Formats: sequence, structure tokens, C-alpha cells
Amino acid sequence: MAKNLTPRKEDYSKWYNDLVINADLAENSGVRGCMVIKPYGFAIWERMQAELDRMFKETGHQNAYFPLFIPKSYFSKEASHVDGFAKECAVVTHYRLKNDEEGKGIVVDPEAKLEEELIVRPTSETIIWDTYRKWIQSYRDLPILVNQWANVVRWEMRTRLFLRTAEFLWQEGHTAHATEKEAIAEAEQMMNVYADFAENFMAVPVVKGLKTESERFAGALETYCIEALMQDGKALQAGTSHFLGQNFAKAFDVKYATKEGGLEHVWATSWGVSTRLMGALIMTHSDDNGLVLPPNLAPDQVVIVPIYRSEEQFEAVSKVAKELQQQLRKEGLRVKFDDRDTHKPGWKFNEYELKGVPVRIAIGPKDVEKGTVELARRDTLTKEFVPQTEVVEKVKLLMEDIQSVLFEKAKHYREAHTTEVDSYEDFKKILKDKGGFISAHWDGTSETEERIKNETKATIRCIPLKGSNEAGSCMITGKPSSQRVLFAKAY
Amino acid sequence: MAKNLTPRKEDYSKWYNDLVINADLAENSGVRGCMVIKPYGFAIWERMQAELDRMFKETGHQNAYFPLFIPKSYFSKEASHVDGFAKECAVVTHYRLKNDEEGKGIVVDPEAKLEEELIVRPTSETIIWDTYRKWIQSYRDLPILVNQWANVVRWEMRTRLFLRTAEFLWQEGHTAHATEKEAIAEAEQMMNVYADFAENFMAVPVVKGLKTESERFAGALETYCIEALMQDGKALQAGTSHFLGQNFAKAFDVKYATKEGGLEHVWATSWGVSTRLMGALIMTHSDDNGLVLPPNLAPDQVVIVPIYRSEEQFEAVSKVAKELQQQLRKEGLRVKFDDRDTHKPGWKFNEYELKGVPVRIAIGPKDVEKGTVELARRDTLTKEFVPQTEVVEKVKLLMEDIQSVLFEKAKHYREAHTTEVDSYEDFKKILKDKGGFISAHWDGTSETEERIKNETKATIRCIPLKGSNEAGSCMITGKPSSQRVLFAKAY
Repeated sequence: MAKNLTPRKEDYSKWYNDLVINADLAENSGVRGCMVIKPYGFAIWERMQAELDRMFKETGHQNAYFPLFIPKSYFSKEASHVDGFAKECAVVTHYRLKNDEEGKGIVVDPEAKLEEELIVRPTSETIIWDTYRKWIQSYRDLPILVNQWANVVRWEMRTRLFLRTAEFLWQEGHTAHATEKEAIAEAEQMMNVYADFAENFMAVPVVKGLKTESERFAGALETYCIEALMQDGKALQAGTSHFLGQNFAKAFDVKYATKEGGLEHVWATSWGVSTRLMGALIMTHSDDNGLVLPPNLAPDQVVIVPIYRSEEQFEAVSKVAKELQQQLRKEGLRVKFDDRDTHKPGWKFNEYELKGVPVRIAIGPKDVEKGTVELARRDTLTKEFVPQTEVVEKVKLLMEDIQSVLFEKAKHYREAHTTEVDSYEDFKKILKDKGGFISAHWDGTSETEERIKNETKATIRCIPLKGSNEAGSCMITGKPSSQRVLFAKAY
Repeated sequence: MAKNLTPRKEDYSKWYNDLVINADLAENSGVRGCMVIKPYGFAIWERMQAELDRMFKETGHQNAYFPLFIPKSYFSKEASHVDGFAKECAVVTHYRLKNDEEGKGIVVDPEAKLEEELIVRPTSETIIWDTYRKWIQSYRDLPILVNQWANVVRWEMRTRLFLRTAEFLWQEGHTAHATEKEAIAEAEQMMNVYADFAENFMAVPVVKGLKTESERFAGALETYCIEALMQDGKALQAGTSHFLGQNFAKAFDVKYATKEGGLEHVWATSWGVSTRLMGALIMTHSDDNGLVLPPNLAPDQVVIVPIYRSEEQFEAVSKVAKELQQQLRKEGLRVKFDDRDTHKPGWKFNEYELKGVPVRIAIGPKDVEKGTVELARRDTLTKEFVPQTEVVEKVKLLMEDIQSVLFEKAKHYREAHTTEVDSYEDFKKILKDKGGFISAHWDGTSETEERIKNETKATIRCIPLKGSNEAGSCMITGKPSSQRVLFAKAY
């Protein structure tokens, strides 16, 4: 294929990296662990952003913006929170550079040392709850339903494009409520919004569930999550929504006057998804020929490639192509006509396969004569000749069909790679031979969870919300278990 | 009025600050010089973003994302660039916190010191041109037309909400071209896009021009700008577009193979507008009653306030209000029906005046009887009764009318506050008594410019592109001048 992609079977991890680079999605920068998101990758992320933003607003949320920097003292106020993030913080200590007097070039000016160090936000609970203290006095000020689109920094030692980078883009919702019940309902609602988005927009099937205590967000009482399964049998956490209880309200002294005249601490949630979703998208649908994009997310849904030798042929073909492009655009489709004369059709076919454009239309002189076009779909790599008069209808149907076929295919893969086991021996065997989700009974203790993790590298991805409530006994300790949980190796 | 706004005449600067705070646009955070943009302020910024983004894409640009951090060595490569920004850089020196062994709480881990310090981007030319080196080999790779929406940090000592903050939000376009001519055309095009946006979307009249050498961007050969005039007679630079020549291409060794087989350095531009535009918006249109928003930028273009005493009246009024809201929404208008029973109509009137909602509709029991509503426009503070059957048409016309009246009013103010002078004595007198733009002859030297600045605090805002080309002699030195330039005190 000459696409410089390592086949998945040979080295899945290398395939992923090759694909991200060669499909022009992102690349490493000169800054350790920080990526450059290239225009094609960013166009996909923008489509995710636009749809999520619409869904957030539809559920009553507004956007705002909070500072990039967090004073160290704020950061330290919620004990479990700082424990969770302290080891991966970028710290600003100075505010000026200068020309070195001894000729060493530009150096940090030692006289411009900050009195208090600033942390580059790894997440914004602390700075936001310090702000909410000023916003909230009475029950009339509640709920606060705010989201921000922002960059955050977590100093990761081993980074991978989109999946784990020192800086990444995300949205973080931070809400404040009068009651525990309302806050829990909000956390659940946002998990559902994320699941809806993943499944219906990204065509990525997910399991909704709760994290175990050891996998919870630092400072949360409960973490809801959506978990997806990648083609190599590893799980990927695609979004989390946290019920924070009154932890941050207590740490930042945020109280409200109740209707009845009392004074209570406020209840909180936070929830986020990030550019990591790009990784989920890529690893759910793509193949050895390159990216496969669901039509909802494709920057170009259709590409038209002209086939010709003479100038005359080019003109005849272009005329059909441009008319078709116009008709398709009228239907709201994103259509590119690639009439560059610097590249051959074969090169273009390769390129759009690599970039995952859902439908490719090729038009040659014979098509002009016969009134046909060649229609190829990226997901199945099948081709057919279609009368020009039927193309628009056909493409409209294809958009829906490809979107749902991708989802069904991924769902089928997940179902085929979700295995119930009842013994630790089977568990290890499945994990080694087949991978995927393993549904098993667990005694609910961190000790057992930790032992399994140490011995097999598998973790509990979630306690599914829609699991069978069939009771059983832990595959390790034999102690009682109220329901099966999902294990997997994970990204 | 009870809006807690200092009148403009009493203290313009305090009026501005009161307005930003009381209209819920932004507030200071606990982090020195960093603001919190509140939901109402952010909703206005989002409207600016959406329109600018549309205009950038229409002119062929794509979005991408580059790292927040810039290694100190990159930052130092372009000499005049680092000189311009070194004094206001936030510097990351460490990547980990830890629990102090002597019980001092959370401290920076001295063992986690970075080998090379990272600068939090004050602007991204250096990191982007380091990336472009990998993207550009041949003339076929050009032009590159990329924009990014991002946060940047410049450690300002004196900060003011929106106008000058340590962290601010902006967009920065960075383009690469094969020829000098193309790059200059791009820089000019983007200045024109900004001017179009400011005048036709924000209703803020601007003067297009060139910066003098001393006011140019650090690293630019030419800086194009748009300058607006605020109500206190001070100018505000609302956007800049830089022709960077080959400076960054040379600093980062970015060459391309020409069609003819040669090897040349690439030509560059960069251009940006920021949340500073919020300041320009506020100070162009608002009054002592609060914010005045042009309909294009108003998160709510129309607010409907019900007037009632009894539950029965409320129901009758609500029915009319809801129907009207639906009809107006069908026309694509953003309409809020404020049916909260926690606040009185008078309070609501005040609130929406403060927040600058262009049109307010009040409906009471008598209106229900008579089939009328009371329509009030924010810009003129005039009211009239309008038959319900005519409201939709009337409001649609008002949207256009208010938008253009605001622009004309601001333009008239600017014209009335642009004064031609021919002597330095008159210059100083006008500057003191009247303010505004002063159009005068200048000999083209930095020395004269510097002297005027030191003696009067006025700077050359721009050399207007559309100025009369009438020659004359410098008001200070009497040396020849080819055209008048615009002076003003500036934000």
C-alpha cells in the first residue's frame, strides 16, 4: 500500500503511531511530551468540540474561563486532591528572563522569583472553587452549571500522541448544587451525555459504570465513567464524571443560605473528556490502510477525484464533478473536489484512504459518456458504479449506513471480546490469549484489586451500571460479591 | 439607578471597572493579574470567536494547536523577538511537588528541576517555526495558512480586566509563503478581515494603518494595525497583523525548494486579536446605565419581562410572552423570557439595562387587553407601545437599526475627536483639553517620536493607510513629512 503503516498484527502500538503521523493528525513537538495537533487532526477535534458544546448547552450549561495558574496554597487545600496530582505538576517559579551578565545568553532572572509558586493547572477544581466562594451566597445562586474548554498539563513520563501527553486539550465541567441528590443526578446526567456522544456521534460503543475506590478521581466520592474497547483488546477510559460531595466546598469554605435560613456546604460535580477521545476514535475504527472516520466526524465526508489524460477530458470530468459537488453540498454534506494536477489519481486514492474519508467518488471520461461514477466506501473498501442521477440519494444513505455499520462492527467486536470467567486461572488465560473485557466476581476490596493488578496488569475498568445483579463469589478469595465487574488491561 | 456604576465623567477608569464587574463580564482571580471570564462575558467572547473563525476559514485558514511551553533556547533564537518578550515571561523550572520532610507542607521538589527551562508562550512564533521546518520542503507545501485559538501569558505589572491581563485568550494566525509579495498580501488581508469584523460585527469603527518602527511587533518588518477610539478620548489597538519577512525562517532554518530548483527561506506573517476586544466593545458603546451591546454580539438580543400582580394575570401575560418568544425565535433571534418570581420587574429592567440587552419587551395585563406590548431599546433608552401583531417585524428592523446606529454614533464621536494640528503647541493643547486622535506631521524619526511620548504620553497610533498624502513639515523639527500620522494617548 506504500502508506508506511506497520500492520496491526505486527505491532499494534507502532501501527497507531504510524497512523497518527502519516494521516497528519498530530506529531511530537520539540517540547518533551507535548504534541502538535495538525490541521487535519484538529478539524476532527473541532467537530467533537462543537457537538459536545451543543449537548452541554442543551443541558443548561454555560461556558466560562478560569486562570491557567493555580497558587500552590490553593492546590494544597484538598488533601487527597493534591496527593493525586503533586507528582506531575509543572511549576512556574519566575516571571522574567534577562541577558546574562557573563555572556551566557538568555537566563532566568534570579531576582524575579515568585513569592508563591504557581502550578500550571492539571485540572481546575481548586481555582474554580476558590472563585465559587464569591459567587455563592444563597440557594438562589444555585445550581451553577459551568464548563470550560482549556489546556491542562500533567507531567507524564511516558507519553503517546493523544493518549497520554504532558499538555492536552479538554473540557472540564464544574457544577455546584444545593443538595447531594441534585449533584449525583448531574454527575449521572453528564456520564449519559458522554455515552450518548461516544456511541451516536463517534460510533464508539461504551460501557457505563462506576470506578472502584482506587481508580477514583483524586477528591471524588464517586467517579462515573465510560469505557471503550480498542481493537487490540485493551480498554480505554473515554470520559469521567465525578460526584465530589462537599469536599471542595469544605476545603474552600463555600456555604449557602438555605431557603429555611440555615447555612450549608455546597455539593459539587466535575466532568471531563479530552483529546484522548482522538485515540479512542482512531483505535476503534481504523485498519491497516489508515484512518476510518464515521461520517459525523469526517472533515471531508466525500472526496471527488477526477481521472483524465487530456485537458479536454479534464474539463468534461470537472464539469460533472463540480455539479455533483454542488448538489451534495446542498444536502449539507462536506465535499472536497481534489482537482490538483500535481498528484496522480492513484496517489489521491491512497491519500484519502489513509485519511479515512468515508466516501470516494472517481469520475473518468467513460463515466462522463455512460452517465455514471465510481463510488467507493472507506469502511468496507467496496466499489460500485452508480448512475449520476442516483449519486446524491445513494451518498445520503451511505452516510447513515457507514455511521451505523461502524458502530455495529465495534459493538460486535466488544461483545465477542467480553468474557465471563469464574476462576482466576481462566481469568489469566483469557487475558493472555484473547484480551478484551473480562467479567468476573470480585470481593470489593482494594487488596484483591491490587493483587490482580500486580500479577496480571489488568485493572477493574468499572463496576457496570447495567450489569446483571447476579451474586457470586470472588474468583480470588471466594468471598461474596454482589455483581460482576469488568477487568481489562487499559490505556 | 442603584447599579453601583461610577458615572463616566466622575472617573472613567472606575466606571469601566465597575461595569465589567457588575455586568458579570469578568473579575479578578486569586492569581495575580489573571482574570476569571464569567459566563455572560464569555458568551460575548464566544460570539466574537465564532464570527472570526468563520471569516478565517472563508479566507482559507485552518486551525491547529501548538504547545503551551516553549524551550528557552527556541525562544532566544530570534534576537529582537526575545528582547521584546524576555521581561514578561512566566518560566516553568520544575515538574513535581512533594511533601516537605520537615513538615512545611507541599513544596517544589528540588530534584525535579528541568534541564532546560520552559517559557509559557507569550506568543507562538518560535515554537511554530520550529514545527514548520518539518512541514516545509518544497514550494508544493506552501502556503501554510494556520490559526490557533489559545491562551498566552505576558507578565504585566499593572493589569486591568480584559485590557491588560497576565493571561489572556486570543487567536494567533501564522502563515508561511513562497514570496515576499504573497506574505505582504496576507498580512494586509488579515488587517482587512479584522477591520471588517470590528466595524460590521462589533460596530466599532477603526483606522487601518502601519505601526512605526518603535511600535512594531518584536521580530516584524512591518506591523499593520486597526486602532479604535474610546469614549474617554484614548485609543485602543484592537488587532495587529505582522509581516515578518524571513526573520523566523532564518532563525529556525526553514527553506523550501523553489519550482526552479533553488533553495530559499520562507516568508512569514502572524496576526492576532484577543480578549482585549471585549474592552474595546465595552468602552465604545456603553453608558452610565451599563453595557450597550450591538445585536450581533448580544447573548440575548431580546428579553421579555412579564408585569403582573395575580396568578391569573401572570398566566395571561405569560401566554402572550411565550407566543411572542416563539415567533421571534423562528426569525433566528435570541430571546429570553424572564419569568422568575424571585425578582420584581423594576429589578429586571435595571438588570437588563446593566447587561446591555438591545431590546426589552414588557407585557402587563393592560397590554393583554389592548393587544400591545411595551418595547424599549437599550441604546437610546426610548420606549413605545407596539401592537402585538407588529412586534416581530419591528424587532427585526430594530436589530439592524441598533447595530447601525451604534456604529454611526461611534464613528461620529471619532470624527468629532480627530483633530488636525500643525504646531506642537496646538498638539499639547488639544491633547490636554479634548483628547482623541491628533493628526499631525512627523519627521519619521524615532527620536522625535520618543520626545513627544516622553513629554506628552501620546504615541503614534498608526500611519494611516487611507491618509491624505499631503506633504508637510514635522511639527517638532520642521523637517519634511510625506503624510500626517495619528497620535493619541492609548490603552
